[in-house]
This record gives sequence, C-alpha cells and structure tokens, in this order.
Amino acid sequence: MSVTAAKGFTAAGIAAGIKSNGNPDLALVVNTGPRRAAAGVFTSNRVKAAPVVWSQQVLADGELTAVVLNSGGANACTGPQGFQDTHATAEKVAEVLSKQGTDVGAGEIAVASTGLIGVLLPMDKLLPGVEQAAAELSVHGGEKAAIAIKTTDTVHKTSVVTKDGWTVGGMAKGAGMLAPGLATMLVVLTTDADVDAAGLDGALRGATRVTFDRVDSDGCMSTNDTVLLLASGASGTTPAPDEFTEAVRDVCDDLARQLIGDAEGASKDIRIEVINAATEDDAVEVGRSIARNNLLKCAIHGEDPNWGRVLSAIGTTAAAFEPDRLNVAINGVWVCRNGSVGEDRELVDMRFREVTITADLAAGSESAVIWANDLTADYVHENSAYSS
Amino acid sequence: MSVTAAKGFTAAGIAAGIKSNGNPDLALVVNTGPRRAAAGVFTSNRVKAAPVVWSQQVLADGELTAVVLNSGGANACTGPQGFQDTHATAEKVAEVLSKQGTDVGAGEIAVASTGLIGVLLPMDKLLPGVEQAAAELSVHGGEKAAIAIKTTDTVHKTSVVTKDGWTVGGMAKGAGMLAPGLATMLVVLTTDADVDAAGLDGALRGATRVTFDRVDSDGCMSTNDTVLLLASGASGTTPAPDEFTEAVRDVCDDLARQLIGDAEGASKDIRIEVINAATEDDAVEVGRSIARNNLLKCAIHGEDPNWGRVLSAIGTTAAAFEPDRLNVAINGVWVCRNGSVGEDRELVDMRFREVTITADLAAGSESAVIWANDLTADYVHENSAYSS
Repeated sequence: MSVTAAKGFTAAGIAAGIKSNGNPDLALVVNTGPRRAAAGVFTSNRVKAAPVVWSQQVLADGELTAVVLNSGGANACTGPQGFQDTHATAEKVAEVLSKQGTDVGAGEIAVASTGLIGVLLPMDKLLPGVEQAAAELSVHGGEKAAIAIKTTDTVHKTSVVTKDGWTVGGMAKGAGMLAPGLATMLVVLTTDADVDAAGLDGALRGATRVTFDRVDSDGCMSTNDTVLLLASGASGTTPAPDEFTEAVRDVCDDLARQLIGDAEGASKDIRIEVINAATEDDAVEVGRSIARNNLLKCAIHGEDPNWGRVLSAIGTTAAAFEPDRLNVAINGVWVCRNGSVGEDRELVDMRFREVTITADLAAGSESAVIWANDLTADYVHENSAYSS
Repeated sequence: MSVTAAKGFTAAGIAAGIKSNGNPDLALVVNTGPRRAAAGVFTSNRVKAAPVVWSQQVLADGELTAVVLNSGGANACTGPQGFQDTHATAEKVAEVLSKQGTDVGAGEIAVASTGLIGVLLPMDKLLPGVEQAAAELSVHGGEKAAIAIKTTDTVHKTSVVTKDGWTVGGMAKGAGMLAPGLATMLVVLTTDADVDAAGLDGALRGATRVTFDRVDSDGCMSTNDTVLLLASGASGTTPAPDEFTEAVRDVCDDLARQLIGDAEGASKDIRIEVINAATEDDAVEVGRSIARNNLLKCAIHGEDPNWGRVLSAIGTTAAAFEPDRLNVAINGVWVCRNGSVGEDRELVDMRFREVTITADLAAGSESAVIWANDLTADYVHENSAYSS
C-alpha cells in the first residue's frame, strides 16, 4: 500500500519517457489533507543536486502539499539550468493540481530525482508526464509510485505500520551509492496521524539516525538522498510522541533492510554489531570502518571468516579500545579473543545470506548496529558499465 | 642491486619453508659498517603486529645492525606468543652474526613480517632459515632478498639512485591492503652515505610523507607496514641534507609507483591531482576521498569518465571549496566546469593503464598527488579466496 496506506493521500506512477527503456520513471504523491505538515532529511554531501536544494527551501515552513519524484536522471551537477528545471517541475505540479481544484503554489511542492549525475533532465518528456501522473492520482496509486522511482533496484520497496486508528506507510528506492548521510535513496513516508511539523521533524530525525544513517552498502555518499514525511491528519488521531516515533522508526528500519537486501551485486547482508564501546559515537565509527573495508567485504563474499581484516579496520579508528582486549565473533563464533587467535575459524558457518560480525571493544557499555554488503564481481560489473 | 647497491651491506634471500609452496620467504640484510645509523616509519594502525612493536623499540637508539624479514605470515594479532617469536627471531640473528664475528645483540636487529594476520609463524622452520640466510649473505644478495619478501606481488621491486660518490638503494613488497599510514608493505632502504640517525629520520619522514603515504590502492591500512633506512657510512661522504632527502625521496617514489603498478587485480593506475586547494591537507583529504570511492574505481575500470562520482566524493570532505566552482578533468579533458557539465565526455581517451584525474578546488594554490588503482572483478576474486 506504500504511501497511500495512510488516509489523506493519493499517488500515481507512470512512464514519462525519461528512461530510454520505457520503464516507469515519474511518481507523484499528494497530501489531500486536512493537514499538510511535513519534515525532511537530506544528504549531508556538500555537492547537492538541484532538487535537494529546492526541497530544503520549500520545507522551511514545515508544509508540503505534494512530492514529485523522477528516476532516470539525478539532476545533480547540472548548474543553473538544472535548478530552473526543478523549479519548472514544481510549477507544473502546482498548475495541474490547481486545475484539479487544489489551490497550491510551487513553494508547497517537493522535488526528488535519482539517476545519472551530470545530465540535464528531458523536460519535454517530464512536464507532460506530470500532467499524466496528475490525471492518474488515486488512493490506490502507492504501489505504482514505488515502482516508478526504481533505478537499479530489482524490486520496489514499501512498508506499512498500522496502530490504533492511524497509519505510517512509505516507499523507498536505492541500490547503489548507498552510505550514511544518508544512503542514495529517495524515501517518502506518509501518515494520517495528526502531528505538526515539529513533531514530524523530531520523529523523522530520531528514526533516520538509527536506520538509514546506519546503512553502508558501499561507502559512497549520494548527492540526492531525500527522506520526506508528510502528515495529512486525516485519522483525526494524535498519537503519543514516543509511539509515533517508534512507528516511523519501524517503517524506516524495514525500508533500510530492504535497501541492503537489494544492494547492487551483493550476495551477503552483513550485520555489524559493535558492543561494549565507550560511547555510541565510538561504536558507529568502528562499525562504519568495518563496513567500508574492501578486503573484509571480499572475504565475506568468499565465506572466509577473516577476522584479521576486522582488527585491521578497527585499528584505523580513534575509538577507545586496547588492541589486546578486542574480541570478534563471526556468526557467533569468537574467532578472536584478546586481540589474538580465539575459537577455530573452521567452526564458522557462512553459507547463508545474512552474516553477523560482533566487535567487542571491551571499553564501555554502548553499542550500535551498522548494515553493510559484501563486495562482489557483480558489483564491479554493474558499476563499471559505461555511465551506469 | 636493491639493498646491496650501497657499499657496506650484505643480504640474502632463501626458502625457509614458511610458505607451503616452497617459494623464497626469508630475507636478511646486514649493515657491515663502519656506521650503523638507522631510522624507520611504521603503520599508524593501532593494531600493530608483533614485529612492528619490536622494531619500533629497537630503533629507539637510532642504530640497527641487521633486518630480518619474512613473508608467509604477518605475525599480527598473535598475542604474547607472537611477540616472543619475534624476539626469538632477533636473538637467533644476533647469535649467528656473532658467530660470524659481528658482535651484536638482539636489540640491534629489526624484524619485519608480512602475510596472513592471526596465525603464529612456524618457528621450527624460521629459525633454521635464519642460519641458512646468514650463511648465504653476500654483497650480491640484494635481488634475492627482494624476491624473498614477495607475497601476492607478481614482480619484486627494487630501486637505486647513485649520486656523487654515494648511493641510496632499496627493496619493497606490497600488493594489497595498500593505503596510507603506510601502505601494506615492507621497505628496506640502504645508503653508504655518512649520515647520522637524526639526518636519516628527517630524510625518511620527508620522503615517505609525499610518496608511500600518498599511495592508496584499496583504502585498507595494514598492521605491518615498515619502512627502514640504514646507513653504513662506507662511502665516507656526507651529502648536503637537501640532496640526501631528494635521493631518498626519488627511491621511495620509484618504489611507491611500482607498488601501485603491481596492485592486486588492478587494471589501471590512477593519478589523482588535486590543485588550487586552500591547504595541502585539504588537497590530500580530497585526493584520498576520490581514491577510495568504490563507484568511481569501478567506473575507471570500465573506462567510463564518470565525473559525477568524482564530485560526489569531493562533496563528502571538509575541504574548502564552493560546489559551483569545482572543475574536473579526466586525462586532460575538462568534463566538469563550475560544478556542472563541461567538455564532451566522449573526448576522453581511457584506453591506457595510467589515468589522470585532475580536481580543481578553485580555493587556493596548494596541491597534492595521490595514486590509486581501479576496482576490478580480479581484485574481488583474489581477495575472496579463503584466507588469502
């Protein structure tokens, strides 16, 4: 049900011709109210795509009426023309929605794009596509919207949590250039809970900090990452803040796991648990260092419990630890104890897709989980094809 | 000629049986004087192998008589037993050299090891190997020593610079886990120049800072990196400090380029020039960020001038720059100007092994060069085999 699981939203997904292969490439999500509160988090990459710059501006007042998303082109590193194109897209959405009776300006329309960096969007196809998408808006359109934002994703990703009288739902795309801050991904979450912009912002930041921000498939940070949360208030229910944050986090966590599970070329999902750290920041730093070690990622691909590569990754961090007190388990077998040889590595069973690496820093009581993928020849092939 | 190009040195390289395939795996380099000054730089990884801990200690007084090196096992993450094994190796070298008439203690012997992490060395093979190597010491032994330290290296690496009456020569190994701080590599440099320990230390640090420390093949920092410089004084000549530093830097630069040229699975050597940076540190940070971007490394492998991935890597740094003033050239074609589309990417010819990426930060006048490799299916295969 995706973004239309919550009451007060319509959506559509169509093929506008932005992708040369004719696949769906344009999605529209509209908040039909009564409330139009919204919050967003965006890539921390300093090179930001035009739609990111635009959407950050229009979100400043905590209100959004609609989100238009395209795959088939990131509109990043496209200069002033790229920003004009984003602006024109928002104007077009406002124009067609106004014709349908929703009085709205471009300043209430967020824009998100994904695809190749450094290429202008084909506006002659995109703008007519907006008209077509608006004509197909439906309370059943969530699935089609989720399909239209796919790039190298092999499956579309949706998630829904329903509580007592209110719902949080969403859709996500992302399969490569997937690393914290956030992952290369577009995510739209919707809720019919009656929550104001400040409440949405707090819940969204709390949720993304421990979900999307802890996904690190390939260490590469995107120019286009966007996560939006829109509230229609259509349920008439205002949940307790903690309960609402938990529901948003559950949807984010589910979508984040779906991103890792569909990462480009990956054959393993690696759950990296860092335990007994002095601080949560230390745990996250160590987890990311392990997640980004290419030699370890290759070893996991080869089902080799090569714990020496885990230690060499930990050793590059500034986290509090003593090298001769480090312990490492792979799938529950403590192959490294006190910085040296532990249980027999032959005991480690790595046949299944999910692999758990536990790094015990023996320096405190904080912990964090980072999700990563292995490094495979398929990843290389998928990303070395010309202008993939 | 390797480490025996300079007068006052003997060396040997033999097969002690540490490697199961019978290839050479033990090297010995001896300074026959008259001077025995030495300096060293070591991995900045906090998880340090036993021989690194040992060699740092014995170098504290600025003197070394010999270096013993083994491939076939890193003796890293091997606990107290690993350190005892390193100590026993140094004791054995001192014993056999003393029998040959060189009065020397274990505290004048550096030890270096390379190979798999987390496995104890077969001392029953290594110690007899030391006796055999000592028996074969020769002023012509430099080449054999360079061959004996190879792991996955396909060729052995040596370099020599001869000046007016004095010489700097050296050998290196390293093909994977190759990243700054230093690369996974063992390097022994020798000179017959008459230079004291402080002079050697200054020259070596000045040279490694701009050579080995700017090699980043795969972003993975080793537990065993060791670069040693030994001076015999046998030429009777004391060069001017600047001239000596330059000669050491030339040998380091040559060896560093040989490491990149032989990196595991690589099909391209990537020269990353960062220009017009506000500071040299900014230039190095940006260069390393580009060097470690897996998506870009895949694109270079595919001969795809994907400059968007260069910009997304620059955007993750804290360096001074404005996104809309960045310029990027690939093999001399300015495919990105002012953060946007520049010259036609079809003009870029990437057929040859060496690829140059120029990143112009337009923020100052400092610069740096980082060398990296592409990411290939061969790298994945070589590093996903069990316990490679």
